[in-house]
Amino acid sequence: MNHRGILVVVSGFSGAGKGTLMKELMRQYPERYALSISATTRKPREGEQDGREYFFKTREEFEQLIADNALIEYAQYVDNYYGTPKSYVEDQLAAGKDVILEIEIQGALKVKQQLPDTLLLFVAPPSAAELKNRLIGRNTETMEVINSRMARACEEAKGMESYDYLMINDDLQECVQLMHSVIQDQHYRTKFNRDFAAQMAEELNEMMKGE
Amino acid sequence: MNHRGILVVVSGFSGAGKGTLMKELMRQYPERYALSISATTRKPREGEQDGREYFFKTREEFEQLIADNALIEYAQYVDNYYGTPKSYVEDQLAAGKDVILEIEIQGALKVKQQLPDTLLLFVAPPSAAELKNRLIGRNTETMEVINSRMARACEEAKGMESYDYLMINDDLQECVQLMHSVIQDQHYRTKFNRDFAAQMAEELNEMMKGE
Repeated sequence: MNHRGILVVVSGFSGAGKGTLMKELMRQYPERYALSISATTRKPREGEQDGREYFFKTREEFEQLIADNALIEYAQYVDNYYGTPKSYVEDQLAAGKDVILEIEIQGALKVKQQLPDTLLLFVAPPSAAELKNRLIGRNTETMEVINSRMARACEEAKGMESYDYLMINDDLQECVQLMHSVIQDQHYRTKFNRDFAAQMAEELNEMMKGE
Repeated sequence: MNHRGILVVVSGFSGAGKGTLMKELMRQYPERYALSISATTRKPREGEQDGREYFFKTREEFEQLIADNALIEYAQYVDNYYGTPKSYVEDQLAAGKDVILEIEIQGALKVKQQLPDTLLLFVAPPSAAELKNRLIGRNTETMEVINSRMARACEEAKGMESYDYLMINDDLQECVQLMHSVIQDQHYRTKFNRDFAAQMAEELNEMMKGE
């Protein structure tokens, strides 16, 4: 079976519980998965540690990463850069870990374009009504915040079909198991097992010649 | 989640244990799966029953099925036709059962071409050495039989990459569970859940208009 790691992108509606899902997946299968760590030019918040939450970079450093083609994808939000360093992901995949990137759709599509074997997972709440509740929040949000969340959710919904699998996060543990199963099954894709197929074919050819 | 059945083609080396795998899968999950029944013009053997092992047809009946485009795929071996009746498969899929076709590669590729959502699984023994043993058999086979098996295995090996997943049948129970998991995970493909995505998008749009 394929021993190289699989690259997995997880996206989904804000409030779909991606963060909790990822945390639980990592807690249950720490040997199997690595969470990709993004690079960013934004300042560390209290308690954040370089190389844990983010790789914190200066603007100059980040632009050098871009120039060196050292990022799988990057984007600019407000005044800051965010991106996925290639070397960390490559090292983890080579070590056999399945690497999970939690990024939004534009980034997901860029990754898929560059690395077509990437598995794209979309996490959604169980129903539109549930999503609505989560978007409106606890009556403490301003109209502006709610509107911007809804606009974003509309964009996110449009992108759902570009993903490979839809994970409905109703029960956390069920969703974690489903995600684990969907990712692990990927290791049995024939495209990741070309060595096995080639070896079989070669040995068969030798047998034919031997007769 | 998707409630329509998934069409699954299972192929693989002769002697890879496909028959036993299918039997065990059906035994463990009788509510979930239906085995497709082929139509054939060959005569029933002792103990075979029409509609159980095969749908037994006359040559005229079979050629009528071809003319009516009522077969998903068909082929001729020696002097007999073998084919997959469309109606039985369609009925089972509509009833929500995952339908399994056990056919060889030419048939598999024809099915995939006609029905691109078909899942193609390839079953292989754990190693080339093991395959070799199985092909040579119990020293009771003629050289002619062994040669024809090897030639066939070479053909089969070439086709492996056209399949979606490679199932290595080392431990029967493990392989059954893997096959079940790989098939069931297909129900979460976004392409089978377009209704869910469309409903989410529609409800979000209504919310936006409501504001």
